[in-house]
Amino acid sequence: MTQSRTEIATLGEFGLIRRISEGFTPALPDTIKGIGDDAAVMDLGAEYGLLTTDILMEGVHFDLTFYPLRHLGYKAVSVNVSDIAAMNGVPRQVVVGLGLSNRFSVEAVDELYAGIKAACEDFRVDLVGGDTSSSRAGLLISVSVFGKVPKEKIAYRATARPNDILCVSGDLGSAYMGLQLLEREKQVFLVNPDMQPELEGKEYVVQRQLKPEARMDVVYELEEAGVVPTAMIDVSDGLASELLHLCSQSGVGAVVVEENLPIDEQTFLTATELNLDPVTAAMNGGEDYELLFTIRQDDYHKLKNNPKISFIGYMTDKPEEVILNTKSGNRYPITAQGWKTIS
Amino acid sequence: MTQSRTEIATLGEFGLIRRISEGFTPALPDTIKGIGDDAAVMDLGAEYGLLTTDILMEGVHFDLTFYPLRHLGYKAVSVNVSDIAAMNGVPRQVVVGLGLSNRFSVEAVDELYAGIKAACEDFRVDLVGGDTSSSRAGLLISVSVFGKVPKEKIAYRATARPNDILCVSGDLGSAYMGLQLLEREKQVFLVNPDMQPELEGKEYVVQRQLKPEARMDVVYELEEAGVVPTAMIDVSDGLASELLHLCSQSGVGAVVVEENLPIDEQTFLTATELNLDPVTAAMNGGEDYELLFTIRQDDYHKLKNNPKISFIGYMTDKPEEVILNTKSGNRYPITAQGWKTIS
Repeated sequence: MTQSRTEIATLGEFGLIRRISEGFTPALPDTIKGIGDDAAVMDLGAEYGLLTTDILMEGVHFDLTFYPLRHLGYKAVSVNVSDIAAMNGVPRQVVVGLGLSNRFSVEAVDELYAGIKAACEDFRVDLVGGDTSSSRAGLLISVSVFGKVPKEKIAYRATARPNDILCVSGDLGSAYMGLQLLEREKQVFLVNPDMQPELEGKEYVVQRQLKPEARMDVVYELEEAGVVPTAMIDVSDGLASELLHLCSQSGVGAVVVEENLPIDEQTFLTATELNLDPVTAAMNGGEDYELLFTIRQDDYHKLKNNPKISFIGYMTDKPEEVILNTKSGNRYPITAQGWKTIS
Repeated sequence: MTQSRTEIATLGEFGLIRRISEGFTPALPDTIKGIGDDAAVMDLGAEYGLLTTDILMEGVHFDLTFYPLRHLGYKAVSVNVSDIAAMNGVPRQVVVGLGLSNRFSVEAVDELYAGIKAACEDFRVDLVGGDTSSSRAGLLISVSVFGKVPKEKIAYRATARPNDILCVSGDLGSAYMGLQLLEREKQVFLVNPDMQPELEGKEYVVQRQLKPEARMDVVYELEEAGVVPTAMIDVSDGLASELLHLCSQSGVGAVVVEENLPIDEQTFLTATELNLDPVTAAMNGGEDYELLFTIRQDDYHKLKNNPKISFIGYMTDKPEEVILNTKSGNRYPITAQGWKTIS
């Protein structure tokens, strides 16, 4: 008897998730949305509950040679809160699973939890439970967050409509540039441990990498402005990838206007210094944890003076066309692998 | 500057959890119970929400040489559902985080999810989300479950009262005996790979190890009988350890009557064969995932004919005394390390 073996790499992460999710059709009447959005949605009666989980693994998601444990604890909570924000919801309770190899001391665990605590305070969530285990291979952090959203305010990925305005919070590509800098300094350090890291004037991009902030402030400001996004997703894998999710799940197309992309000056300068294209970083960099969302044209005036929000394009009724209009007047199709490859 | 380093082993798992939880006092009005029970409790308005998380790591929690992936997937869900059962609640939605090293194929992932699916069907929960990541070191499964319980039916650990009757579901020590058998067969196999495992007549104890079943059936039967336990905990670390949690958190003592301990015949025979004490296995074996709970004496008649429930002792007003009354008429103090050490 031969047993067939298919490598996971042949499916890719999204292919694997698709394969898994096909086997699971929600059966309970209170499951409103299962796999396929930033968070699951449960009917709690008066409002919706939200549930999301993320794993961070040493050697895969972070490198402890330059990632302080306190920042890592903060990030582990923040990236999950970002998934709740992407549903236009408010995070409430969090549980943390921890795998620790014996190279971690009690003091190291204290540092990690100091960061978790700072994030709990910043995002107003309660740590309510967890699980702690030894680990044979480095540090592992698994976080799940429970949140809530009024039923009429929920924002899914699949509900963008043609002619909606495409918006993004904050700026793009900075976390990616921070990572490039940290990687460069690590290489310098490995060659010459006496070298001091050259990060002066780069504090912003480094912080964007080390301490990503879920944009709950933007969720609250949308509420104050009386705007419910027609669709929303958080930018964890890069604008291009997230926009393609929004478009394919909503059955719409999009046009992104390059000159409207929010790119911070430090991102631009760092990219130039490292011979990288800042627009590529903005489109494909990842780990921005900004909110990408669509609004009705009628709501534009409510947000146009908000300095945290950029209006970067619009949705169309051509699902097959997700386009970048460049400054030079060209139109490039945006693809998952990256628009990178054709830049 | 010297940095102090304290090994985690000096605190132990419970010491570490205590240290962590001291830093986290719930701040939100809808957080009813944070760290310290089987699941966190949230006020959802009409009822309570429950949230719990558990990590299973290869090489720490399971050995893939004898643990089929399908069973492992089942177990990962079941042990979390058991935490919801221990609050007298009903599980609703589950999210699964997965870390996979490249030695796992798509077919292996399919097997794992087949087990997860079987558990979702058995316990009537929906898989609603997750996170999949590569792993540098073997397989890791992190599961979080959301559940619900009517406010008047919740069962905490800290609410047992003197003179309550101490009850346990199912039987004890069988999962531990199953593990001993599997470990023995693994050693035999390592010496002589042609040997067939000798597990005939041991199907029950092996299954108790490989496919633990959360006792949702008992939760439903308690409801049908109109009984709300005064306190409840699930038996994951052995009866002794869990009973000490119940007693210390409730501020009561307990007397356990040895001859009332439910021990299956296969457990007894396997223990004899392996020169182990079946009572030690029952008291300290662990991984039974049975429910240990207390009831009012007035409720005894409602449960006395239920074959799934054993009445193994009673609670007292002497918090410092948690006692085993043996068949031989002796009284031994039950300790966390085990009553084992003094048997």
